[in-house]
Amino acid sequence: MPKEIIISLDAMGGDHGPSVVAGGVESYLENNPDADVRFVLHGDEAALREELKRLARARRICQIVHTERVVAMDEKPAQAVRRGKGTSLWSAIEMVRDGKADAVVSAGNTGALMAMSKLILRMSAPGLERPAIVASWPTLRGITAVLDVGANVSSDAEQLVEFAIMGEAFHRAVHGVERPSIGLLNIGSEDIKGNEAVREAASLLRTGGFDLDYQGFVEGDDIAKGTVDVIVTDGFTGNIALKTAEGTARFISSLMKEALTSGVRSRVGAAIAMPALRQIRARIDPNAINGGPLLGLNGVVVKSHGGASAYGFGNAIRVAVDLARSDYTRKVTANLERLGRVMDGASAAAQAHTQHAEESRV
Amino acid sequence: MPKEIIISLDAMGGDHGPSVVAGGVESYLENNPDADVRFVLHGDEAALREELKRLARARRICQIVHTERVVAMDEKPAQAVRRGKGTSLWSAIEMVRDGKADAVVSAGNTGALMAMSKLILRMSAPGLERPAIVASWPTLRGITAVLDVGANVSSDAEQLVEFAIMGEAFHRAVHGVERPSIGLLNIGSEDIKGNEAVREAASLLRTGGFDLDYQGFVEGDDIAKGTVDVIVTDGFTGNIALKTAEGTARFISSLMKEALTSGVRSRVGAAIAMPALRQIRARIDPNAINGGPLLGLNGVVVKSHGGASAYGFGNAIRVAVDLARSDYTRKVTANLERLGRVMDGASAAAQAHTQHAEESRV
Repeated sequence: MPKEIIISLDAMGGDHGPSVVAGGVESYLENNPDADVRFVLHGDEAALREELKRLARARRICQIVHTERVVAMDEKPAQAVRRGKGTSLWSAIEMVRDGKADAVVSAGNTGALMAMSKLILRMSAPGLERPAIVASWPTLRGITAVLDVGANVSSDAEQLVEFAIMGEAFHRAVHGVERPSIGLLNIGSEDIKGNEAVREAASLLRTGGFDLDYQGFVEGDDIAKGTVDVIVTDGFTGNIALKTAEGTARFISSLMKEALTSGVRSRVGAAIAMPALRQIRARIDPNAINGGPLLGLNGVVVKSHGGASAYGFGNAIRVAVDLARSDYTRKVTANLERLGRVMDGASAAAQAHTQHAEESRV
Repeated sequence: MPKEIIISLDAMGGDHGPSVVAGGVESYLENNPDADVRFVLHGDEAALREELKRLARARRICQIVHTERVVAMDEKPAQAVRRGKGTSLWSAIEMVRDGKADAVVSAGNTGALMAMSKLILRMSAPGLERPAIVASWPTLRGITAVLDVGANVSSDAEQLVEFAIMGEAFHRAVHGVERPSIGLLNIGSEDIKGNEAVREAASLLRTGGFDLDYQGFVEGDDIAKGTVDVIVTDGFTGNIALKTAEGTARFISSLMKEALTSGVRSRVGAAIAMPALRQIRARIDPNAINGGPLLGLNGVVVKSHGGASAYGFGNAIRVAVDLARSDYTRKVTANLERLGRVMDGASAAAQAHTQHAEESRV
């Protein structure tokens, strides 16, 4: 029997607050009727009681911790942290630190979630300045985990290797792939391409003796192809790649909508093909792949899109449950310790390798 | 009357060689019957004579310079440069250096084109290590020019400003926008976001007194929205953004194809809506937006996709003609000189600004 999991929820975060959070619990329970999970909702008790009234499953299984205050969606992280105590977000994270919950989920202010999590839980990966955010990216072959997509503005080789270690363990825990393959995002597949950080990270991953299936460099178009299960990049590039892909998908959707409503003939064809067109939408629906963990903390923290539906929030809960129930921590800890041991020797080797590559460049 | 333009063509480059190059001239002349342009084709004289026989317009207007050798598509740039003399590519570029042609177009090996152009023509922008490649990106509002998409692996603030200066002049020359707006690609729109290079470049663009319409930071999803006319980024991020977008577009096309051929009903709907669906394809057809200039050289150099059709190659020719005929050089020279003058004073101001921003960060 798997152990009972307790999930702590920031019930006031996101664009829709309590209705989507409580509704998300209901949606999760509908889709995972056998899950041995309890929930603690942090937020306005009266509002939450009201929401739970109409939710048959969630009502029986949710505990409420009343909090008076809320972090605004547009509040600056520094300010949110200063006046954080007593907010639903702070209270929800604290429960994980105190060992009273196995994971926390919030649809609230990303910067505040990141800053508070870092302060309350502390980083577990020594090289990381901030937690890494993972995007679960729909591809031709399923889901690829891409990280970091926005937390760390620049990343050296050691941090990139930490992303690889954490992303691999995440992918196994949440997407059920036994031995996820890993690629480093670069602008060419040859060893001599790219900036120094990716070339050194590649050398570390090849020679460091990690228990990882590292496949080499991949390029931007490999993300949607699903060439590998986990793609590692710095937070600047990862964030821009993610938003560029979202923008491209919206652009093509707009063109399709325009084209398929541009005349009687198009409208008739579109109406007939509608069930098929809906399938596409389902495949790239952000709610279906909602739930981006913040990795590198002492504890499981999952970010839901602020605008997610109850179904979407339920999927973020599923990510938190799967991570909390998995061997994520054990696997990550072993590989991070290995990274610590090999950094001295391996970085010398990597420097030699980099220098050699530099000399053979044009 | 605009002056006569002479375009030098590497007639052996690309996946299809002479047939697409000669066919590209014919296509250009069909679509621009009044253009006062002559062409010099560098390559195998016999093969080119044979191609020109069946091309009524191109035959009358093309001169041939016979060359014996060809740069292979997979040849390493360093090797291509060493044995470059006597190749069609070298000969085509040399004509621009010698003032006998106004621009050169090649569908050949990108690395070789870049290395040879740099060697033969030399860089005109002092901060640039290599030429910057521009992508003409289809957006909801038209075309946005994105640069650099792959030549310079890392870029400091001065280089980013050079990209802004060159990209703006390119956009006006080729896409006919009187005063193109400019954005810097970043991971957030606030001044304090991003890495040091983009923050310093932003400060330079705001305070440097350039004759440019700088609008501030933009994010990845602003590219396809067409928020600004020119988007500036380093070659690493730009290349990954471009390939990520291409991968996303192909992914959605695959989903559509799969969905619309998945059953009788879908196939009927798709057949009826086909003319509308073709419109979408035309809007994002790489051949329609073919022709990426290499900016920062003493001379106009345009790269065509290696797999472009004759129609696509004709569009790359159009880019070269428009650039050669425009006031691109004059505008760029004035702003680059301004950049040189303000670097000392402005960089001190930018440092103060950056420091202030750093202090106000979390």
